Amino acid sequence: MADLTELRKVLILYTGGTIGMKRNNIGVLVPVPDILTGKVKTCQELHDPDLARIYSIRNHELITKVSSCNKVIAYQIREYHPLLDSSNMTPKEWVIIANNIEETYNEFDGFVVLTGTDTLAYTSSALSFMFKNLHKPIIITGSQIPIFESPSDAKNNMLSSLVFASCSDIPEVCVYFSNKLMRGNRVRKIHTSHVDAFDSPNYPLMAETGFHCRIYRQFILPKTERGTLAVTTNLCESIGILYMFPTMTRTQLLSFLEPTLEGVVIMTFGAGNVPSHRQDLLDVLRNAVGRGVTVVIVTQCAKGSVSFTYETGQCLEEIGVIPCYDMTVEAAYAKLVVVCGMTRQSEERAELMKQILRGEMTIYH
Amino acid sequence: MADLTELRKVLILYTGGTIGMKRNNIGVLVPVPDILTGKVKTCQELHDPDLARIYSIRNHELITKVSSCNKVIAYQIREYHPLLDSSNMTPKEWVIIANNIEETYNEFDGFVVLTGTDTLAYTSSALSFMFKNLHKPIIITGSQIPIFESPSDAKNNMLSSLVFASCSDIPEVCVYFSNKLMRGNRVRKIHTSHVDAFDSPNYPLMAETGFHCRIYRQFILPKTERGTLAVTTNLCESIGILYMFPTMTRTQLLSFLEPTLEGVVIMTFGAGNVPSHRQDLLDVLRNAVGRGVTVVIVTQCAKGSVSFTYETGQCLEEIGVIPCYDMTVEAAYAKLVVVCGMTRQSEERAELMKQILRGEMTIYH
Amino acid sequence: MADLTELRKVLILYTGGTIGMKRNNIGVLVPVPDILTGKVKTCQELHDPDLARIYSIRNHELITKVSSCNKVIAYQIREYHPLLDSSNMTPKEWVIIANNIEETYNEFDGFVVLTGTDTLAYTSSALSFMFKNLHKPIIITGSQIPIFESPSDAKNNMLSSLVFASCSDIPEVCVYFSNKLMRGNRVRKIHTSHVDAFDSPNYPLMAETGFHCRIYRQFILPKTERGTLAVTTNLCESIGILYMFPTMTRTQLLSFLEPTLEGVVIMTFGAGNVPSHRQDLLDVLRNAVGRGVTVVIVTQCAKGSVSFTYETGQCLEEIGVIPCYDMTVEAAYAKLVVVCGMTRQSEERAELMKQILRGEMTIYH
Amino acid sequence: MADLTELRKVLILYTGGTIGMKRNNIGVLVPVPDILTGKVKTCQELHDPDLARIYSIRNHELITKVSSCNKVIAYQIREYHPLLDSSNMTPKEWVIIANNIEETYNEFDGFVVLTGTDTLAYTSSALSFMFKNLHKPIIITGSQIPIFESPSDAKNNMLSSLVFASCSDIPEVCVYFSNKLMRGNRVRKIHTSHVDAFDSPNYPLMAETGFHCRIYRQFILPKTERGTLAVTTNLCESIGILYMFPTMTRTQLLSFLEPTLEGVVIMTFGAGNVPSHRQDLLDVLRNAVGRGVTVVIVTQCAKGSVSFTYETGQCLEEIGVIPCYDMTVEAAYAKLVVVCGMTRQSEERAELMKQILRGEMTIYH
Repeated sequence: MADLTELRKVLILYTGGTIGMKRNNIGVLVPVPDILTGKVKTCQELHDPDLARIYSIRNHELITKVSSCNKVIAYQIREYHPLLDSSNMTPKEWVIIANNIEETYNEFDGFVVLTGTDTLAYTSSALSFMFKNLHKPIIITGSQIPIFESPSDAKNNMLSSLVFASCSDIPEVCVYFSNKLMRGNRVRKIHTSHVDAFDSPNYPLMAETGFHCRIYRQFILPKTERGTLAVTTNLCESIGILYMFPTMTRTQLLSFLEPTLEGVVIMTFGAGNVPSHRQDLLDVLRNAVGRGVTVVIVTQCAKGSVSFTYETGQCLEEIGVIPCYDMTVEAAYAKLVVVCGMTRQSEERAELMKQILRGEMTIYH
Repeated sequence: MADLTELRKVLILYTGGTIGMKRNNIGVLVPVPDILTGKVKTCQELHDPDLARIYSIRNHELITKVSSCNKVIAYQIREYHPLLDSSNMTPKEWVIIANNIEETYNEFDGFVVLTGTDTLAYTSSALSFMFKNLHKPIIITGSQIPIFESPSDAKNNMLSSLVFASCSDIPEVCVYFSNKLMRGNRVRKIHTSHVDAFDSPNYPLMAETGFHCRIYRQFILPKTERGTLAVTTNLCESIGILYMFPTMTRTQLLSFLEPTLEGVVIMTFGAGNVPSHRQDLLDVLRNAVGRGVTVVIVTQCAKGSVSFTYETGQCLEEIGVIPCYDMTVEAAYAKLVVVCGMTRQSEERAELMKQILRGEMTIYH
Repeated sequence: MADLTELRKVLILYTGGTIGMKRNNIGVLVPVPDILTGKVKTCQELHDPDLARIYSIRNHELITKVSSCNKVIAYQIREYHPLLDSSNMTPKEWVIIANNIEETYNEFDGFVVLTGTDTLAYTSSALSFMFKNLHKPIIITGSQIPIFESPSDAKNNMLSSLVFASCSDIPEVCVYFSNKLMRGNRVRKIHTSHVDAFDSPNYPLMAETGFHCRIYRQFILPKTERGTLAVTTNLCESIGILYMFPTMTRTQLLSFLEPTLEGVVIMTFGAGNVPSHRQDLLDVLRNAVGRGVTVVIVTQCAKGSVSFTYETGQCLEEIGVIPCYDMTVEAAYAKLVVVCGMTRQSEERAELMKQILRGEMTIYH
Repeated sequence: MADLTELRKVLILYTGGTIGMKRNNIGVLVPVPDILTGKVKTCQELHDPDLARIYSIRNHELITKVSSCNKVIAYQIREYHPLLDSSNMTPKEWVIIANNIEETYNEFDGFVVLTGTDTLAYTSSALSFMFKNLHKPIIITGSQIPIFESPSDAKNNMLSSLVFASCSDIPEVCVYFSNKLMRGNRVRKIHTSHVDAFDSPNYPLMAETGFHCRIYRQFILPKTERGTLAVTTNLCESIGILYMFPTMTRTQLLSFLEPTLEGVVIMTFGAGNVPSHRQDLLDVLRNAVGRGVTVVIVTQCAKGSVSFTYETGQCLEEIGVIPCYDMTVEAAYAKLVVVCGMTRQSEERAELMKQILRGEMTIYH
């Protein structure tokens, strides 16, 4: 008889995304509700009826044994209604996901979130900031090709995510995609169509899968010794991203920073530069900071860090703009959404933005 | 006596940028006028007084012999006043550069433009579209470290750019940086501080330097058989870039597409997706297209191509949004600036945006 | 009723390798005969019983429909007895594979060879040289993880290889592995355990799979207009590879080039250098060339080309050593095995080694 | 007056290599003695006559101020006679270098070794094992292009190496090349002709240079608390490297492991596999181990680790072959040269080969 002690329990939240899409009659991929779990049940990698019998799992549960780590994982798939295309993911959906995890936190060893790849980096960044004192893994994944097509990356991404979700020593929100485990607030989607679609441009990988599974523990945050799970679900939606370009007008900047905007991530040229001779733009930014808008900057470059080295960057520092160093734009945006939801004081917001909260940035001096 | 027939003549337009900056008394890099040429004269790689005597070049000229290709290159540096930080480069400056090249087109074998790295990809993209029937190389370069510091990438970038600018069989606007020659409208700055700062994410390199110099001719556009040089200098400045994010409001989109905006590049999620259930945003875009705004899309991803596969992308196609396939955001923006300057008819603009004008995109079917 | 005209037929030769291995009772992977086909039959991606009925395929055949390219592929798996670990693949096995393909050349649209990854690059290189006037694709593949484990790369590699094997316009011996199609004589195994285990260091990819399948036709050899298939199966086994190292002795070199050795690939330092002050080693090489041994060189570096630039490389040229430019060591070795089997004349052998036979090298002047 | 306290002193050992070569009358690069220092004196990046006066340095010394780190470095270049092409570097030369460093260890803050790139990885690996309790940096560098040509990577490599050689907190033998500082026993030459010629395939970079200089201290070994410098100069030259290939004969293996060979690195297929059905080869290896030869294995792959997973690898373990995990072939070879020089007992040799002596390998369990 099987040794039931090694059974791990994982909850999969299926929010939508390519992984569960099907082509409609004109060949366009569309989400179809209530079919993913049925499909998963037929995948020999993802569900083993014999094990289901042996472990007497309930009808809505699935179970699989992963040869590489000798683990038996029982899991449920909770499907969202309606299914969400990743383009439609907003802070409201992040809150639903976080609530679902919090409510069931004690029932499971870990969590997998299936979502669309297009906004996956926003979602994984946001969740990383929403969970404090996390002691269990939350693995965000998806696929570039639906599970209903073949070849597809869906099954491998889902299975390996289940494995990492059952590892008790990864107390982080992570992204697993195409053989790489990455910190959730460090990833970016780097290719529109390749299966190897995500990367962690400014932070090392946390694990790699292949013939071996290598976990790089030195790059995983240690568990906090004390403190219980705290989930921030009061998010601020009045946050924007603005991409700097050569002909930006005062009116564009001004109207973008509309009265209701509370925080903005400006994607500056290079290492943190904006047009320095455009006093009109700087005035708009100064006024925005003055009236309490939290203005932070990241780079337009794929890699590297913002800093205030040039004359053109210096002027930003003077007016109270906050550099996000090597944070991704997705992480900076999500951090603002969470931080501005935590407090209404602009000084506190600025202070929190400058702190490293979840390993999201590297500050070089 | 030296064989004067092999002497090549190049014009360097020094517009500004890190390459000629110095630290001020508080350690910030600032442009300093009228010192670059003097410095270059003292660099043994960049100027050879003996050759100057042999070839009897004029006082304001410099001359160097490049061992790897056995070429003698005489060149002048024309410095802009004031020097421009790259954050301050706009279409007005692109016109000045283009005019300077056009005016001296017959005097030189090729051209080098020294500019700041932060907006270099915008400048090189714009110049590529501004010059039609180009038969001589225009090489855009710069450096991550000033020529006055050491170590620095300035001298090598400048010298190799001179070499490629003297190659008669590269009839393109190119970027040379850190041992790579790339098509001007294909490059992006990919790292804020590394010396290997530029890449051509969706198109192969045109040449590589090292112990050998390898030119990959199959990736260089052939010279147009007929047609004389035509330079477009009537540019449209009412062009913007808008980065899609989860909480974008109707008001933000609407006010960004202010009445005067004639063209916009939207950086969409993944392969061309925007929030499809946000009828309010789609209505704003539909109205904009309806009143003649040219709306094009590129991806937020570092690599890959937009296409209309998902439900969420489909809705864009229906309202007349134009996909830019694998174009960089810088190239799409610069192409709009040039194309909208060429004609006021929105149908013609759309038609031109859909055509491959300078090898700037790959259309996969 | 289904349109039977689009049915493609592929033969899979299953020679052995990780893809069909199972762990024995002490956890070591071992080949197990007669189980792969049964397993494949249960994989929904790889076999569709409904299609089997519709197309009335025979009992030993399998059939699958590939959604991405809308192809129906019927195929057989011919298993080798005994199964071969890739470490045990030699020219004898290459001949068996080639013979099997030649015998059934007219029956199938293309061929897939399943083999172990460790010597895959040797096998694919050899097959590329053994087939002349090839008009059908031969796709070599395998996996880093057995098909019996999960997650595994086996199914996706096998399925995509079937797809490319059914493309009539790829008249080459290719390797498909982890979303990349590469020329067979250009690949190397670049990682011992990663799923993305192969690369083509000195030649572009021929296709990439992902959400889209992109075929780069400009990098695929054109079909030869005339000439019928010719298969070289008279191979020379007296070929060796020798890795240069600082303390190599005259005795080692001499004894390695034992009387019976007919060809040797020397893996030199850098761009083709051997100890030039070691007259003893050079004498041994000179004597070897003199008595008819074909001595060719490749580099120890992962990328790049050998050439004779330094004093130390020059001495090799003088004694008749042949540079293989940017060929991989596996391709150089396999080419020697084939070329030395084709003729016993050392001049002809040298001449053939210097020619580009199957796109295996790039000669820069 | 200048603050003399910040003056750092570095010794450069110029052993030979491309960095100091010149083309002879037929265009071949050859070493030319007694010209490098003169050239360096004329390079404004590398020598500042004003500083020389201020600091009253002696005639044979050079001095430079590095802007990025605000250091003044006084240094001497000790040239070897004759200059050595890197193909001619052997353990004898390693001993000379080590002796030179040991003799002057207290006089300088750090050391730079200029050597040819082709065997640089062998030299840097060897030196790393020869120095125990090292408290000062030894930086190995060179260039792909001579300092006498332009563009060239020589000056930047030399200057940055001087900077790192003057950093007291890098107590390791490192390689600096093309903006990367790497552990000396982890590097490989990865491209024959590119300027970015070295990589550290299985270990992170220790520092990167560019606009900023980033030192990654977590990847630098800590200084040993106690223990004085110990230099092993009794090296064993009877060490070889053997590259496995499909047709290796018993005679070849046997004669390579000639009676006098004391240690051998076998470059096996993949993760540590040799032909397992070739009992003749295994017998030869078993006999070799039996008579005291230290037989270790590394992989032929560019990245990854050997381990004993397959039947074919298992047989090696049984006969006493030692896996070097993710060591480079150069490091494994150099470690054998040093270890076999330290003791004549084969058990001790085996024990030392299995230990991590200088951060040269990662052992995964």
